[in-house]
Amino acid sequence: MSACRAETFFSQQNSCCRIDVEEEVLRRIKPSPNEYLVVGSAVNKVVELLEEAKSFLDIDYTVSVQGSFAKDTWLSGDVDIDVFILLDKSYCLSIAVVDRLLRVLEKRVFRGYHVEYSYAQHPYIRVYVDPVWVEVVPGCRIEAGEKPLTAVDRTPFHTNYVKRHLEPWQLDEVRLLKRFMKGVGVYGAEIAVRGFSGYLVELLIATFGCFRKVLEAAVEWRPPVYIAPPGTTLEQARRLRRKYPDSVMFVPDPVDPNRNVAAAVSRRSLALFILASTLYLKSPSKAFFFPPKPPSSPNKLLEKAGWRARRIIVVRLESPEKIVEDVGWGIGWRVARRLASLLENLGFSVVDYSVYVDSKNIWVFVEVGEEVKPPLVLHRGPPVWKKNNMLRFVEKHLTSTSVGPWVSEDGILYVLKKPVHVDAKEAIESRVREWLPKSASSYSVSVYRLDEAVGRGLLSGELIEKAYQFVVKAPPWLKPWEYS
Amino acid sequence: MSACRAETFFSQQNSCCRIDVEEEVLRRIKPSPNEYLVVGSAVNKVVELLEEAKSFLDIDYTVSVQGSFAKDTWLSGDVDIDVFILLDKSYCLSIAVVDRLLRVLEKRVFRGYHVEYSYAQHPYIRVYVDPVWVEVVPGCRIEAGEKPLTAVDRTPFHTNYVKRHLEPWQLDEVRLLKRFMKGVGVYGAEIAVRGFSGYLVELLIATFGCFRKVLEAAVEWRPPVYIAPPGTTLEQARRLRRKYPDSVMFVPDPVDPNRNVAAAVSRRSLALFILASTLYLKSPSKAFFFPPKPPSSPNKLLEKAGWRARRIIVVRLESPEKIVEDVGWGIGWRVARRLASLLENLGFSVVDYSVYVDSKNIWVFVEVGEEVKPPLVLHRGPPVWKKNNMLRFVEKHLTSTSVGPWVSEDGILYVLKKPVHVDAKEAIESRVREWLPKSASSYSVSVYRLDEAVGRGLLSGELIEKAYQFVVKAPPWLKPWEYS
Repeated sequence: MSACRAETFFSQQNSCCRIDVEEEVLRRIKPSPNEYLVVGSAVNKVVELLEEAKSFLDIDYTVSVQGSFAKDTWLSGDVDIDVFILLDKSYCLSIAVVDRLLRVLEKRVFRGYHVEYSYAQHPYIRVYVDPVWVEVVPGCRIEAGEKPLTAVDRTPFHTNYVKRHLEPWQLDEVRLLKRFMKGVGVYGAEIAVRGFSGYLVELLIATFGCFRKVLEAAVEWRPPVYIAPPGTTLEQARRLRRKYPDSVMFVPDPVDPNRNVAAAVSRRSLALFILASTLYLKSPSKAFFFPPKPPSSPNKLLEKAGWRARRIIVVRLESPEKIVEDVGWGIGWRVARRLASLLENLGFSVVDYSVYVDSKNIWVFVEVGEEVKPPLVLHRGPPVWKKNNMLRFVEKHLTSTSVGPWVSEDGILYVLKKPVHVDAKEAIESRVREWLPKSASSYSVSVYRLDEAVGRGLLSGELIEKAYQFVVKAPPWLKPWEYS
Repeated sequence: MSACRAETFFSQQNSCCRIDVEEEVLRRIKPSPNEYLVVGSAVNKVVELLEEAKSFLDIDYTVSVQGSFAKDTWLSGDVDIDVFILLDKSYCLSIAVVDRLLRVLEKRVFRGYHVEYSYAQHPYIRVYVDPVWVEVVPGCRIEAGEKPLTAVDRTPFHTNYVKRHLEPWQLDEVRLLKRFMKGVGVYGAEIAVRGFSGYLVELLIATFGCFRKVLEAAVEWRPPVYIAPPGTTLEQARRLRRKYPDSVMFVPDPVDPNRNVAAAVSRRSLALFILASTLYLKSPSKAFFFPPKPPSSPNKLLEKAGWRARRIIVVRLESPEKIVEDVGWGIGWRVARRLASLLENLGFSVVDYSVYVDSKNIWVFVEVGEEVKPPLVLHRGPPVWKKNNMLRFVEKHLTSTSVGPWVSEDGILYVLKKPVHVDAKEAIESRVREWLPKSASSYSVSVYRLDEAVGRGLLSGELIEKAYQFVVKAPPWLKPWEYS
């Protein structure tokens, strides 16, 4: 793992550099002057309209541009523009005020635009100003260091921090790291990914200097990982562990050091990033940034799966209404974990499981070790000197169809008994009540083998890609040739 | 577990008693007056001849009757008569003297009898005095407490101890316990059984008083078991543990408390005895004393095994010469254990194994969980943060036919890989060099499935019974109905 054979050195101090692959990627992801112009004018338009609106509204607010556009860390073709309307603390939490404000903006200010009224943790509106979406987000105007009132109130401070701490050349480093993480599949704090947020990427560049330095650091990471961005201390990072006991990575927010910016990063995402960093530094390639997409053809999927298609169980949870994405993924992962542990308790060997959520369904894939279990399996009983257990065990199995009981070399009783289920699909179907969480009780459940699901034409588009990836298992940046 | 509803009380003090089943068994195993007469006259004949022989031999010795006949603890139809010739210490170890003595006895004294010259740890001769075999055993005449010179020198002291410590009614208790242990399959210290010797049975009766009291004690045993026969202490029993680290039961020999009379008892034999004692006291039956014999018909064997016949591997080790029994069993068990651990290392699940030795072959049975393994099995690699292991693992599996590698939820790398062997029989056949001990290198090895071995007519007689028991697994005293 040596430093790059410097094609482009831009910081003697950090010995940061870029190799050809990175320059090439950067050319592709860096917004063009024309793109800046187009996006910029859309942003200006929204800001202008919001400023003008003040004159006929009796609500005072400050308009402020946020998001990756404001920080200039966006990727070509993929910008997020948040225009914040910061309200006075005395009424910013009043739903009535916020709602009336948004309704007026929606109906009068943005008339003629395509507008969506949306609700995450708080209400906001999305406006399409050709060719981009601009999000108009109400928040509270707080002072630096003050306790935030809503989830978005810290955002302006984050934006300031990034602007103050990143030098112009580092913005491209942020872009490289974002694209790398996207390629590797660990970009995004949402529950579907449980990875690295954009702000976390910016903090990593602020901390280590540049893309390659972050990767070089990651090669040495092992969970728990503690990182102190400028303005914070390792002591603060370590202190976060008590507050976030389930996290594997701890990065204090310079704007509020009691908050862990890396709270969402799962062990798997962290591990994937470490793995990809190590392999990339050893042998760089564009595949890490732009991995091939899995084919979306049902035939190619079945061909790739081969006889394993009969070992892969597809569970479909059909929702009676549109699925809220975070909720769906939450249920999906819970179902997957419960299915895996149920099957293992029943004596199946679970090879792997995964989840996919679309607007109407949660899909869970489970691969088991054997297509069917042998009709008799070894069952260990108590040692003969545990008198009560021993008597219960012997009496139970004397009158059953088990083979045995017998005493093995170690003095333990064993029987060969019929497993309750010999077929994983059948086990899942007949024990729905044991693995379906209450939160999904309104969903209708169906269970298929992968070959059945394909045969019935249930899988299509992205879901096939997901299934293809599940069959190949090695990620596309690791074995790109498996995806062509 | 209540005391017996005393049909026959014979010791107020110990509250020892016998129930009907035991009285009935006793009637069957107690030698008849006529049997005493016949066996007694055979013994007298041998003693007489040996005494007479002294007159024309220039070797002095003492003739002494030993064995279960001398102690009156023998079972009808199953007596062992040892007539010892005790020589002076000055020449008892001289092979020349002992050999000449035995040759003279063989050729001149027992002329006209059927005589076998035999060699266990030491030479002796067996004489058939219709209708019984009498063993004529040379030994050294030592004093009580003196260090024995040969393995048999303690025997006269054992005989004396038993005669002194067992009251007449207890001799029948010894008979009951011997027969019970035979039925349960734990009687005999030889390596084929690794169970309780006759002398140990006598000591147990001397310690606990009677058959039922031994069983009642056994119900509470768990290894390590310490027992102090009259004249020894529990402290002495405990001290034996250091000298016999592999034993599970410790009984000091009253004749030499540094010797563990129970050294041969295996964990399995001990467990079987505890199990049988518990079940017998709960629900007594003659099946414990006289369990049914397995059928010796190949067809019944195959029928009983069903599809499991394809999961049971039969390994045959054919010896170039007659097998010495103890040696054969020793090799057999070693082979069985090595086969089991080899198969488990290769990812097979071993259900059970067993051994049988006849005059020319060692037979090992192994039952595995699945007829064949799935063609791809889960293989766990290192966590991604073990950099060197990780790189080796990834590189190895990038170029192989494995599925993966992938990173699971726990940050560990996995692959699905082709198992080296999918078939247990094939694995055993192709790895003979790994499991065959040096001591068996002259044996020729063949491997079959049970159905093949039966189909080729390789199994017959006792070996079929052994295989039948291996298939049923539950011992015949536990599930007698499975053996009819």
